[in-house]
Amino acid sequence: MKHLKKQTLTTKLWGEYDTDELISSFTIGDDLKYDALLLKYDIVATKAHIRMLENIDILTNIEVEKLDIALDELEKKLTDNSFMIPAVFEDGHSFLEAFLVDKCGEVGKKIHFLRSRNDQSLVMMRLFMKQKLDDIHALTAEVIGALEKQAEKNKEMLMPGYTHMQKAMPTRVDTWLLSFAAGLTDALLLVNASKQIVNQNPLGSGAGFGFIGQQVIPNREITTQLLGFKKTQQNPMYCGLSRGLYELMILQSIQPVLSLMSQHASDLLLYTMKELSYFSLPKNLTTGSSIMPQKHNYDVFELMRGSESVFNSYVTQIYGIISHRTSGYQRDLQLTKKPFIEAIALVEEVLNVWILTINSLKTNKRTLSRAVSPELYATQKANEKVMQGMSFRDAYIEIKQELEQL
Amino acid sequence: MKHLKKQTLTTKLWGEYDTDELISSFTIGDDLKYDALLLKYDIVATKAHIRMLENIDILTNIEVEKLDIALDELEKKLTDNSFMIPAVFEDGHSFLEAFLVDKCGEVGKKIHFLRSRNDQSLVMMRLFMKQKLDDIHALTAEVIGALEKQAEKNKEMLMPGYTHMQKAMPTRVDTWLLSFAAGLTDALLLVNASKQIVNQNPLGSGAGFGFIGQQVIPNREITTQLLGFKKTQQNPMYCGLSRGLYELMILQSIQPVLSLMSQHASDLLLYTMKELSYFSLPKNLTTGSSIMPQKHNYDVFELMRGSESVFNSYVTQIYGIISHRTSGYQRDLQLTKKPFIEAIALVEEVLNVWILTINSLKTNKRTLSRAVSPELYATQKANEKVMQGMSFRDAYIEIKQELEQL
Amino acid sequence: MKHLKKQTLTTKLWGEYDTDELISSFTIGDDLKYDALLLKYDIVATKAHIRMLENIDILTNIEVEKLDIALDELEKKLTDNSFMIPAVFEDGHSFLEAFLVDKCGEVGKKIHFLRSRNDQSLVMMRLFMKQKLDDIHALTAEVIGALEKQAEKNKEMLMPGYTHMQKAMPTRVDTWLLSFAAGLTDALLLVNASKQIVNQNPLGSGAGFGFIGQQVIPNREITTQLLGFKKTQQNPMYCGLSRGLYELMILQSIQPVLSLMSQHASDLLLYTMKELSYFSLPKNLTTGSSIMPQKHNYDVFELMRGSESVFNSYVTQIYGIISHRTSGYQRDLQLTKKPFIEAIALVEEVLNVWILTINSLKTNKRTLSRAVSPELYATQKANEKVMQGMSFRDAYIEIKQELEQL
Amino acid sequence: MKHLKKQTLTTKLWGEYDTDELISSFTIGDDLKYDALLLKYDIVATKAHIRMLENIDILTNIEVEKLDIALDELEKKLTDNSFMIPAVFEDGHSFLEAFLVDKCGEVGKKIHFLRSRNDQSLVMMRLFMKQKLDDIHALTAEVIGALEKQAEKNKEMLMPGYTHMQKAMPTRVDTWLLSFAAGLTDALLLVNASKQIVNQNPLGSGAGFGFIGQQVIPNREITTQLLGFKKTQQNPMYCGLSRGLYELMILQSIQPVLSLMSQHASDLLLYTMKELSYFSLPKNLTTGSSIMPQKHNYDVFELMRGSESVFNSYVTQIYGIISHRTSGYQRDLQLTKKPFIEAIALVEEVLNVWILTINSLKTNKRTLSRAVSPELYATQKANEKVMQGMSFRDAYIEIKQELEQL
Repeated sequence: MKHLKKQTLTTKLWGEYDTDELISSFTIGDDLKYDALLLKYDIVATKAHIRMLENIDILTNIEVEKLDIALDELEKKLTDNSFMIPAVFEDGHSFLEAFLVDKCGEVGKKIHFLRSRNDQSLVMMRLFMKQKLDDIHALTAEVIGALEKQAEKNKEMLMPGYTHMQKAMPTRVDTWLLSFAAGLTDALLLVNASKQIVNQNPLGSGAGFGFIGQQVIPNREITTQLLGFKKTQQNPMYCGLSRGLYELMILQSIQPVLSLMSQHASDLLLYTMKELSYFSLPKNLTTGSSIMPQKHNYDVFELMRGSESVFNSYVTQIYGIISHRTSGYQRDLQLTKKPFIEAIALVEEVLNVWILTINSLKTNKRTLSRAVSPELYATQKANEKVMQGMSFRDAYIEIKQELEQL
Repeated sequence: MKHLKKQTLTTKLWGEYDTDELISSFTIGDDLKYDALLLKYDIVATKAHIRMLENIDILTNIEVEKLDIALDELEKKLTDNSFMIPAVFEDGHSFLEAFLVDKCGEVGKKIHFLRSRNDQSLVMMRLFMKQKLDDIHALTAEVIGALEKQAEKNKEMLMPGYTHMQKAMPTRVDTWLLSFAAGLTDALLLVNASKQIVNQNPLGSGAGFGFIGQQVIPNREITTQLLGFKKTQQNPMYCGLSRGLYELMILQSIQPVLSLMSQHASDLLLYTMKELSYFSLPKNLTTGSSIMPQKHNYDVFELMRGSESVFNSYVTQIYGIISHRTSGYQRDLQLTKKPFIEAIALVEEVLNVWILTINSLKTNKRTLSRAVSPELYATQKANEKVMQGMSFRDAYIEIKQELEQL
Repeated sequence: MKHLKKQTLTTKLWGEYDTDELISSFTIGDDLKYDALLLKYDIVATKAHIRMLENIDILTNIEVEKLDIALDELEKKLTDNSFMIPAVFEDGHSFLEAFLVDKCGEVGKKIHFLRSRNDQSLVMMRLFMKQKLDDIHALTAEVIGALEKQAEKNKEMLMPGYTHMQKAMPTRVDTWLLSFAAGLTDALLLVNASKQIVNQNPLGSGAGFGFIGQQVIPNREITTQLLGFKKTQQNPMYCGLSRGLYELMILQSIQPVLSLMSQHASDLLLYTMKELSYFSLPKNLTTGSSIMPQKHNYDVFELMRGSESVFNSYVTQIYGIISHRTSGYQRDLQLTKKPFIEAIALVEEVLNVWILTINSLKTNKRTLSRAVSPELYATQKANEKVMQGMSFRDAYIEIKQELEQL
Repeated sequence: MKHLKKQTLTTKLWGEYDTDELISSFTIGDDLKYDALLLKYDIVATKAHIRMLENIDILTNIEVEKLDIALDELEKKLTDNSFMIPAVFEDGHSFLEAFLVDKCGEVGKKIHFLRSRNDQSLVMMRLFMKQKLDDIHALTAEVIGALEKQAEKNKEMLMPGYTHMQKAMPTRVDTWLLSFAAGLTDALLLVNASKQIVNQNPLGSGAGFGFIGQQVIPNREITTQLLGFKKTQQNPMYCGLSRGLYELMILQSIQPVLSLMSQHASDLLLYTMKELSYFSLPKNLTTGSSIMPQKHNYDVFELMRGSESVFNSYVTQIYGIISHRTSGYQRDLQLTKKPFIEAIALVEEVLNVWILTINSLKTNKRTLSRAVSPELYATQKANEKVMQGMSFRDAYIEIKQELEQL
């Protein structure tokens, strides 16, 4: 695709050749890298857009077919891992138009009618969001399933419950595992709300202001249907406003999943200490040291724990970027792409790792049963006194005094 | 209530008299202040708990009545604005038990049977959460209504749409106002998910481990029904785990409301600049300067804008507090109370302020219509050329060249 | 001071009586509460300001004396814990002027010449900052001293060093304690830089733009000298710009102290677990449970750990508030007061608690020496082979294989 | 370097072949990418380390020379942009050892004596930190110089000063520009403190516990001198503790530079609005629109503004990762590399962009002088009345009433 550089079509759609190089590289940033990942969604949306243009008689059926062939060709290129958007372009959208002009000639110049790069970026991200929310929902359900299976295996096995890092009362391995499953089940209600929110088609909002008072306006219901959205996001300024906002809504709705994952990992870092040895992982899930021959480390739990902090910083990054902004697209909104995409990739990876560790977790029955020591039953003893007629507070004080005389 | 200090019952339920004073004040922190606000929910939950104890034959009907009278008396005291929990107590729960012992004698010592302060704190917060989510939902709906009313008043009034802080394309005042209403409508889906999540009764989970293997366990369905929860939060470790997590879920689900509010305020700070003068507020909603006699300032929009940042920091505070923790209650979870309660109070206040400013907003038709200048129609002109048969990109380039020759 | 309400002088300096009540309470926020704490610094700065006005012949010597007496009277009132700024005022500065008018008549109306509330707020905070940085520096030095004393007591006592929560190599109790002392010593370099930065007098910058082209301008060197600042902050727009920025610089320069404190507390939560029992605190520094009679909890370490997270959120709150703002005072800068003052108070409290816990820490020699188990010496064994001529990597592999055959 | 995969030496130093692939890729993460950037510092430090081993008679002079040649060879490879650490290695340190074994045979296996990968990582980062703090210091000084030059060009040119987004009092273009220069000058005091802090040699601390009770210990003063550090970081546990902490100290000390940059960009986004037109940039520093032919956008200022938020999230990411951790290396500390390196790269880029925009800034004298309108002189008028004998408050009220009658 290198030859695109030399063509007569400007590589910046707004036709400037002489942008300062530092400004150019600074304003483009990592956008080409992320747009390459997202280009497949831009292609899908472009196919819908040209059908809409056909419907309002801007393109002929033959032109649509010609463009389709070129778009299919581009889609195939994407499967090559080494695919990159040539660095002369400002973004994937500019490249897509240039590619179509290069392949199809004049008709390629028609496709930007009634849509802006804002439109393209919004709809491309929206399709990505829908897909990824489905994926993360499925992975979370898989975690729940793994927890339930382990709980079943360890049904009613006693373990010490801790408060303040000190033994408190007896609990059960299955209760502990299922507490995370219950949290995830609740967390999915928030993920579902996000799924419902993003299921709206922004394509056709133009530069974020629609096409007021113009002779032609896009027939947005067509693209809504073709792209499988549940509804059209009617207000064009809301389409613009949702940029950054939807990224935030999604990440915040997923965050509790990460929070639960991190706490589970923290528990396991404690429970796999030699001094406790309640659980272990098979050796091939642990790592070693370059200097200390005796080490088998649970790095995986440490990185799971840390992943929540990384994820949280993506949320706060978007807080920072979009807060205090005024209506209408501003270039710093482009900066929300990186944290959003990295956050989603992190979630997918860490959920897969979580599933693997849950499935591989070994329970050490011997150390667990030894750890369920008498002090854990102090409350039960007080309760027994209550059943014999004493008030709870008096029973508590009696037991306390007995313990202190030991 | 000062005489409570002198009673024989220890003011710390665990019976230590000699805790170091610095440690005592550090560990109690602001808790008494927040528990005073929440005590009414502790009272409601205590009434349900004693009915449950009656049901399992720990309390008689007469004892329940006696306790009810004392609880009613305490509830009345709360209406006095100067009510404070005496500083000798560790928290509101300890005070409540001491109060009942003081008023009812021996029977007061019975009420802590089958519940812990963890229980009390959880159920008290849960009732507060339910109430506040309802309140915030209603206020948000009121904001939407106010936006719709203003949109109706300014129906189809043109205004310049900006991108990159520069005039872009024409838009409408009602489109601008309704973009926020659309965002809030979506945001309420997340609030609704939170409402559903917190509608679970944690009371009866004890210290977070239930009452495994004991002769008596609480009949939790009774309190669920009496307190109007939709279901019982079954897993006792999940009850403990939800502390901090629910606070986070709620605040994150509300955050988009704040984000929209802040952006609306930022828009208005720009649009009320003398240089633009698109909108104004009546003088009695503005403030002045101590040194510059000419000033009428829109401080209200500045503080609305800043409120989002304050709110966001409450979310990140809870991120920090609960991340990396292990299962089972730990005292730093107590620190989530302050940011949660302050965040909720902030939201309620700022939404009321938002409603007031929307209702009071004056549109300056003269400056708005003057601001809708020809440059906003450049895209429309290109589109007209397309309707006459030119490709969009060629039309764009022609208009651009015309403009640059001016 | 209630009668001030009825006086003829307007309670808002800009003379509006009819500000909407909700707007008034929202824009004032918590400012009166914080200004009450800071009023003493406003009084000190006002004394310097009136001397400056005397120097440029706006006030006579007799007028200065009269004002001084009134200011002394006000200062005395502050020592009363129940002192509050009457709620009719917008802030402490408005109250101060009204108070002087009330006490001194016409001369009170003269004092706002050549200064604004911006000025007053800046210089008041600056004096507070100077004081608090000195206090925190001293407290940090005290922590270092306490660590050194404990290190001396536990000189060369072996303890296990952990990596990845697993025993790694032997270390020493004094090495562990002094690692925090070394960190604090470095951290003080940042605190010292902050101290140097804030040692600049902002008074006389007016509303943030100085007094360009006017007949009289303040003689700023006089107040610089009287208030003990090292230099005058010359650029008036920098005076304005430093609002929020200095708060941020200070908190970020102190943050490493909190980070070290939190890690030390986290270590101790682990090392005081029954399963390890390396250290303990005397009972009167621990707390109990309302339901579990056997508990002695180290809540103090949990709250120390959590305090860092609370502190960090104060930094991020200021990030949010000041980022993206434009030059010139805007009311949301007022919102930086609360997180700054709360952060400083938190640091002072938690450092005192830290000192107490270090001084009270008990080392359990028996469990420590038992914990220094043979596995900790695996690296040493490999090193010994190197001393006998083997390469390190081969020695490592040999030891590893020996261990795995066990 | 592909053949290294097949060599007999294990690619994981701790000799496991069968680590689960998902765990392996998750725990390694982006580390190879960042280690490739940092490898040159690892090479420099390794050269110092082998000289130390020579000094204590572990290596001969001939062995040192042999290793040096191999290290030089590796260093040359790094200059190739496509250099990557083969994916079979856990990190750059493992690769370095394998490379030396491959090139030098047995002697390569000796170099890991008396050092760990912790050591290598710490010293490598420390050298990177020193370099980058110098670079950022120089760039910041360059920004100050650019601001001073522009101030000189626009000496005493009046412009309106704004408070609350409303015209307040007259100020000057040079005052405005120099306010940022003054802030940066203060900010450098914090950067200097960081420079002093990181100027300590951590090499020789082993796995973070030194080499207690062993026959040989590293002669750390040799490497301190060879690597140009000002002192040796003595306490080995402090070396470990400084991981993450130093990253945090540095980023926090640089943050005010970003905060000033962002505010300057925000000012310029406002001041370049057509409605104000106080300043502009040459066309080749602006960008255009794909749909609106008339647009010249200041995207560069938007991205400068947003860069602060991105930077701030790197700080909070490190807050999250290191908070609540216990002493001794844990794998999530590895996660601090990415935000630190990305933050440093962002700062370098954005400072270069800032310098360019300052140098290119055009002042629009005509619009500026027209904007300095009479209302800006209201305070001056009040002051004039004071000079004629009226009290300031009375003068203020008179002017206010005059203005309101207009």
